[in-house]
Amino acid sequence: MGKHLTTREEDYSKWYNELVVKADLAENSGVRGCMVIKPYGYAIWEKMQAELDSKFKATGHENAYFPIFIPKSYFSKEASHVDGFAKECAVVTHYRLKNAEDGSGIIVDPDAKLEEELIVRPTSETIIWDTYRKWIQSYRDLPILVNQWANVVRWEMRTRLFLRTTEFLWQEGHTAHATKQEAIDEAEQMMNVYADFAENYMAIPVIKGTKTESERFAGALETYCIEALMQDGKALQAGTSHFLGQNFAKAFDVKFAAKDGKLDYVWATSWGVSTRLMGALVMTHSDDNGLVIPPNLAPNQVVIIPIYRNDEQYEAVCNEAEIILKELRSKGIRVKFDKRDTQKPGWKFNEYELKGVPLRIAIGPKDIENNSVELARRDNLTKEIVSREGLDNKIDDLLKEIQNNLFEKALKYRDEHITEVNSFDEFKEILETKGGFLSAHWDGTPDTEEQIKNLTKATIRCIPLDAKNESGVCVFSGKPSEKRVLFAKAY
Amino acid sequence: MGKHLTTREEDYSKWYNELVVKADLAENSGVRGCMVIKPYGYAIWEKMQAELDSKFKATGHENAYFPIFIPKSYFSKEASHVDGFAKECAVVTHYRLKNAEDGSGIIVDPDAKLEEELIVRPTSETIIWDTYRKWIQSYRDLPILVNQWANVVRWEMRTRLFLRTTEFLWQEGHTAHATKQEAIDEAEQMMNVYADFAENYMAIPVIKGTKTESERFAGALETYCIEALMQDGKALQAGTSHFLGQNFAKAFDVKFAAKDGKLDYVWATSWGVSTRLMGALVMTHSDDNGLVIPPNLAPNQVVIIPIYRNDEQYEAVCNEAEIILKELRSKGIRVKFDKRDTQKPGWKFNEYELKGVPLRIAIGPKDIENNSVELARRDNLTKEIVSREGLDNKIDDLLKEIQNNLFEKALKYRDEHITEVNSFDEFKEILETKGGFLSAHWDGTPDTEEQIKNLTKATIRCIPLDAKNESGVCVFSGKPSEKRVLFAKAY
Ligand SMILES: [Zn+2]
Ligand SMILES: [Zn+2]
Repeated sequence: MGKHLTTREEDYSKWYNELVVKADLAENSGVRGCMVIKPYGYAIWEKMQAELDSKFKATGHENAYFPIFIPKSYFSKEASHVDGFAKECAVVTHYRLKNAEDGSGIIVDPDAKLEEELIVRPTSETIIWDTYRKWIQSYRDLPILVNQWANVVRWEMRTRLFLRTTEFLWQEGHTAHATKQEAIDEAEQMMNVYADFAENYMAIPVIKGTKTESERFAGALETYCIEALMQDGKALQAGTSHFLGQNFAKAFDVKFAAKDGKLDYVWATSWGVSTRLMGALVMTHSDDNGLVIPPNLAPNQVVIIPIYRNDEQYEAVCNEAEIILKELRSKGIRVKFDKRDTQKPGWKFNEYELKGVPLRIAIGPKDIENNSVELARRDNLTKEIVSREGLDNKIDDLLKEIQNNLFEKALKYRDEHITEVNSFDEFKEILETKGGFLSAHWDGTPDTEEQIKNLTKATIRCIPLDAKNESGVCVFSGKPSEKRVLFAKAY
Repeated sequence: MGKHLTTREEDYSKWYNELVVKADLAENSGVRGCMVIKPYGYAIWEKMQAELDSKFKATGHENAYFPIFIPKSYFSKEASHVDGFAKECAVVTHYRLKNAEDGSGIIVDPDAKLEEELIVRPTSETIIWDTYRKWIQSYRDLPILVNQWANVVRWEMRTRLFLRTTEFLWQEGHTAHATKQEAIDEAEQMMNVYADFAENYMAIPVIKGTKTESERFAGALETYCIEALMQDGKALQAGTSHFLGQNFAKAFDVKFAAKDGKLDYVWATSWGVSTRLMGALVMTHSDDNGLVIPPNLAPNQVVIIPIYRNDEQYEAVCNEAEIILKELRSKGIRVKFDKRDTQKPGWKFNEYELKGVPLRIAIGPKDIENNSVELARRDNLTKEIVSREGLDNKIDDLLKEIQNNLFEKALKYRDEHITEVNSFDEFKEILETKGGFLSAHWDGTPDTEEQIKNLTKATIRCIPLDAKNESGVCVFSGKPSEKRVLFAKAY
């Protein structure tokens, strides 16, 4: 059939690309590297947004909006930031088009050249700290706890839907504090908010840790991250939270008067997650039949499909289905009743399997006779005949069980794919055969980190927050090490 | 005091500009024409978004997301559209910066010139219809009912916060239909959704109508609009909904096979409202003391302010205030309890008046003795002492009354400022003295419309949907006319 999906075994990467398109999550647009997020994909993103937004507000943050354009000169103000962000970007140089004199179409008007070029924001630290200078005079103006939902642009040469696109959607939190400790606490808090969201809402287990200096955000003193493991054994950074010290306050001259009247630079954090999480969602749970969406994120948690041979049966079955629909909706369950008579049940079964709807109810004349329905789970592909009595409670329970099961399954896979390695030979062998995270001693130098990366493509994903103190020697240099870090190939 | 506001009488335009900034709604950024929407302003915009989004979904629409960049050539495909939109816009010509060889900073890398320039979307018809071509083959794929929440950019020479900014936030609906009538019905439906939202949620009375040919959206066959009247007698277009015919389907070659197998071009609509509504909100309800926000839109509907002379009183008053806070929150009322001891009550009174909080509760030791509180309304600036008994119900009722009162007040003003005029002398006199809408006969020609505009700056705001058939003669040309239209100076 047209919906045949390449299997993960055949070609994991192709499986992912096909699935994102066939399940109507997103597709490439006519603009190189920019995607169209289709309604079904966007509905899942909206669920993520709503949950994150409520978590941000519960921790005292407010939303605001800052300009999409950043004057080129702003990027030069924070030295490390410019190298990290201002290079591959979309540059606006003109503000007008005009009709070509030879009638060949529209051309850029050379008379409408901007005095200073504008960069389409790759991230907003610079424009926001330029604004905070006006908002902050005294300790009374602090903290500022602001988040922005926005689109950003980073000019990527090789793009993949959701995972790496020229334009993507994200949220970026930017906070300002009177003390170093408060800023560090904020950065840690937001890492924890992200971890809670990933595990309890998206059913994606994550490891919390800090980045090594070379993997840090450009301009940060510390980058906290959550790292997830995909089914192909590659890691994916699912969210980052940065302690920025006073770097941006110094670059944009943002000082505050403390209670004792002394002037000091303001302390900063920033933190973000993006539509990349859609890619993590797909690659954590889905299978060769299509998407598997955790109930929390599913636009439709249940689909009802009528089974019938003639008009009389269709009517009887639809009547009963409408009653079930109402019962479930009144419990707050998101249900779709697909009563189209232009598609066969088998076609619908495949369609909703592909789309990852957690539960499918099929109801036919036999079921009405027996006061039952057929219930199919998307997560483990099991089916059972269950009684109509108490169906709403049964489904409510099952949705929770599926949510939990998906997390436990992903956790088991992740835990089985953290391997302690104690030599570089072992490191390379496990990386190539089993994949996953390699827990290894590292001597702490950027040089060793880079050499390992060049030889194996594995990077240090994080220094886990819960890493035990354990004397050992670096798998690469043999120099002493005090704790293990996690290496992996990564998206 | 520092918050002194220019009065509307003194200088209406200055009053608006000051109020938007002093009430923390928005401010200008370091990027010419681009604004920063501050947390308080954004919280109001979020309320608008939530209500509109639920109305869109209730009428069957889904959200999606399309690229911010549009290739230059796309604009040339719809002839009238290019003249309307592709001229004053932000043009991306390069995709990389680099360090200048002379060490002077970062410069645009001349080697990174795009083959085809990209335009930052001023509106998305072209990129969306380029996408719809892939989504639509048969009548089964129709209708497509999609909305997008996004930022757009139109290069404006003279900007004002919310009313006219280079970048603004909006939603744009883009629908595709199998028949002309269905598309017309959709365009009318969305005009009605906007009118319902403006009147019943924002408390802004609007007139529904259609635009004249010269005021229509570039590429539309019919533009439906809702027109509001500001307190200075100028009109403001608060939302538009366009019937686009088959223009974009033809430009982007989007055909569908009907049930009978025949191929035809798809019918289209688009419709949008923007952060401009924030300007309409301010200019409809606010006064010389500051913002007046309808309860539906107020981030805080009630503020509680403690009155005290010493610590003992502070504690007693705060205890009672906390109880009131809980009572009101449990009724779903949005309340803020400002118990800061760093600011005096008088300062707080002014602050929340400026911010437009609909109801203020002041509670002091006397109130505790008398089992009462002082309740002040922002809309009519009245105060009363009310009993603590049933305070929650009283406030619930009052919020509804204020919402209603604001609408009625605005409606009375609007209705008093629709003046029938029957000669061009009368037209000019009323326009200059009283302002508002002028209901006048017009001969239906673009030429007359333009001459009136050039002589008076008044434009035809709309041909009201409920205009009566009435024989008359054009106020300008003396030629016959069948119905009156509404003229006004406009934002
Ligand atoms: Zn394995
Ligand atoms: Zn008047």
